[in-house]
Amino acid sequence: MFNRASGRLVKAPEHFIGADGVRQVFAEAREGRRDFLRSAFAAAAGVAAAGASAATAPADGDPNILNLPEHSKGLGNPVVTDGYGTPSKFERNVQRRQSPGLTQTRQASVSFAPLQSLFGIVTPSGLHFERHHQGWWDIDPSKHRFMVNGMVKAPKVFTMDEIMRLPSVSRFHFIECGANTGMEWGNVAVPTCQYTHGMLSCSEFTGVPLITLLQMAGADLKKGRFLLAEGADGSSMTRTIPMSLIESGEVLVAYGQNGEMLRPENGYPLRLVVPGVQGVSWVKYLRRVEVGDQPWATKDETVHYVDLMPDGQHRQYTSIQECKSVVTTPSGGQVLLDKGFYSITGLAWSGRGKVKRVDVSVDGGRNWRSARLQEPVMSKCLTRFSLDWVWDGKPAIIQSRATDETGYVQPTQRQLRGVRGTRSIYHNNAIQSWLVQESGEVKNVHVA
Amino acid sequence: MFNRASGRLVKAPEHFIGADGVRQVFAEAREGRRDFLRSAFAAAAGVAAAGASAATAPADGDPNILNLPEHSKGLGNPVVTDGYGTPSKFERNVQRRQSPGLTQTRQASVSFAPLQSLFGIVTPSGLHFERHHQGWWDIDPSKHRFMVNGMVKAPKVFTMDEIMRLPSVSRFHFIECGANTGMEWGNVAVPTCQYTHGMLSCSEFTGVPLITLLQMAGADLKKGRFLLAEGADGSSMTRTIPMSLIESGEVLVAYGQNGEMLRPENGYPLRLVVPGVQGVSWVKYLRRVEVGDQPWATKDETVHYVDLMPDGQHRQYTSIQECKSVVTTPSGGQVLLDKGFYSITGLAWSGRGKVKRVDVSVDGGRNWRSARLQEPVMSKCLTRFSLDWVWDGKPAIIQSRATDETGYVQPTQRQLRGVRGTRSIYHNNAIQSWLVQESGEVKNVHVA
Repeated sequence: MFNRASGRLVKAPEHFIGADGVRQVFAEAREGRRDFLRSAFAAAAGVAAAGASAATAPADGDPNILNLPEHSKGLGNPVVTDGYGTPSKFERNVQRRQSPGLTQTRQASVSFAPLQSLFGIVTPSGLHFERHHQGWWDIDPSKHRFMVNGMVKAPKVFTMDEIMRLPSVSRFHFIECGANTGMEWGNVAVPTCQYTHGMLSCSEFTGVPLITLLQMAGADLKKGRFLLAEGADGSSMTRTIPMSLIESGEVLVAYGQNGEMLRPENGYPLRLVVPGVQGVSWVKYLRRVEVGDQPWATKDETVHYVDLMPDGQHRQYTSIQECKSVVTTPSGGQVLLDKGFYSITGLAWSGRGKVKRVDVSVDGGRNWRSARLQEPVMSKCLTRFSLDWVWDGKPAIIQSRATDETGYVQPTQRQLRGVRGTRSIYHNNAIQSWLVQESGEVKNVHVA
Repeated sequence: MFNRASGRLVKAPEHFIGADGVRQVFAEAREGRRDFLRSAFAAAAGVAAAGASAATAPADGDPNILNLPEHSKGLGNPVVTDGYGTPSKFERNVQRRQSPGLTQTRQASVSFAPLQSLFGIVTPSGLHFERHHQGWWDIDPSKHRFMVNGMVKAPKVFTMDEIMRLPSVSRFHFIECGANTGMEWGNVAVPTCQYTHGMLSCSEFTGVPLITLLQMAGADLKKGRFLLAEGADGSSMTRTIPMSLIESGEVLVAYGQNGEMLRPENGYPLRLVVPGVQGVSWVKYLRRVEVGDQPWATKDETVHYVDLMPDGQHRQYTSIQECKSVVTTPSGGQVLLDKGFYSITGLAWSGRGKVKRVDVSVDGGRNWRSARLQEPVMSKCLTRFSLDWVWDGKPAIIQSRATDETGYVQPTQRQLRGVRGTRSIYHNNAIQSWLVQESGEVKNVHVA
């Protein structure tokens, strides 16, 4: 069956009722519902019995035995009133994964979201990607403080209570690490879309617009055109945010994620939400913002998160995530069951607003068809796209190309490398290519 | 602090920096940032030390000791690459709760979602309300089958693989049990909104439009104006769905919820999604649909889920959830910290389309103000509303009144009882009243 851990479609005949079985079922269907039901379930059970697990196999070969599964006969589990609900045990392999050897320690590392196993646009908080610079903490919200200082009339210190009683907004936004797809700059073709694009997640965030808190402190918005955001964890994460982004009201001091409080690994109890901007600026464990009149050029915006250009120079303050997309099914590591119909689906996003269109090619970019976009299409949010496809069993190279509302078109790998070279780490938004081989196996390929 | 388990705002002076503290912090702020930081954190820590937990209290009273919390100095936890993420330990009391004595067994019971602790519109799947008729199961998807029969050209049996390779859609919808707020029909005033309205949740659902599967089986949509949906669990849950709802394409055979597979307690691996209709029709563990030419009048639409009217008659097939709303903060069980500013917030929904407006009263319905609606406002989906309010410390009765795009206005308790009496269980969508007492304590009241 469809093993959603790898998003692997495995040939597994026992999971289909064969032609004979179907003929038998349909023949008996004409004799009335009860017989139909009995035979169909016997068939289903018999068929399943041919497979790996025989848990519901008939006691013997007698087709007249009514062989209902236990869950159709017994008393199930009680309501879950203690603890917190968890996924099915059959989904246990759908997990965040750490790329082996990508970082020296697991406290300054990355875990990737299993994009090939997800639906729609919401990322379950239990599968949200992680990027830590000095590990994650579970901070007591009753002790946490948030400070506003710098070019303000009256510096202010807020408790969580004081922040949470202010008017809040809730908005759906994607968050993408600036290093997402970074391994594709070189000639390494990372096997699955979990590893190529999995430093990407999308949630409904709830919080107070930062501009509200700056106004409460009497920030000087004329001279104070920049803001420093500082986290409370040991990495001393500090990032410069231009005031122009904050004035729009989009930047949030957030405590909520997908209806509940932020998860500890995502910055509980407070993180900055900077829609469209790379994840490192979404400072976790947010404890302080300072209003100033110039960028701070901190370690995390000078040594890290800068773009190495072909001439050896580094581009700085390239924070906005340009328009990008990826096909999540079929994608690397999956194996198509057989020829025939498939729904090609994936995700598109832009740090500059709404996705306007997504085109999909199954012949390596020679021909393109426009994909369906799932409503609602929201600004600086993931957009799910899909396209019907009948696979003829021959090799096919599947690509997606997104265009955002500014008219910007996602570049090919060649176009991007022509400008940026191949030695960079950050901000790779090139078109992704998946090769479907005759065997049905799908692999990541770098096409010229 | 704000104890989100009960949504309780408790007077807790140790969580505020007192006037002296603030003056000292601001005075030192003028002397430069480093001093400001040191003193502010000393102040925060010192203040916290006065509270219940003294984990980060200074070693001694010396105000010059830089007393950063451990999480600002140490190495944190590694990335979570095995298992599945969970909420902060400080959120452990935010849980589904079972109403004591509401049902005889926990296998045929209800657990309520903690609405007073949630933000935005998405319900975390780990907190989604439950209603089981014979307990929940974790069914092996490789063995599960979905059947289409009845008035069709060719009855069909689908595996999960066969369903999951078809074109799918993802949509945000609320699901509400027809018995939600049922305890309010009588004179019992249930204490919190978790118990009054907590059989309500909202998710992004992903699945195949049922109409697609009916067409694949060659359903006779002319004569076959009704559909029977049947679950695989021991309760033999069967419900009649009018074909008119299905033809719109809204009704889904769903496997996805909030980006991942359905949770077992919500019907893994397959459930029917019937937007706008009471939860009992969203058949869990869906194994079969039958096309027919008249309603089936099954036990769960004749004995249960019928509306007892004042004349002793029962109304049947009243499945659509009429327009309704509830204020979740302030709500029963909460205690306001003090006079002053609060953001009144809550949820509104309608089974007939989009919420058009929500009015809020703080004087028991004499005067109304129009609340802000959080975009995007989606059809048959929760809508978050909010209104600024300054509490003067005097008793106040807070109510919300929703209007949907059909023009239907949520009724008062008196209006609803005038038509429906007081002996019903189902479909209570009356305006909810919360009394804020001078003590700051909030309680559920039935106003004439």
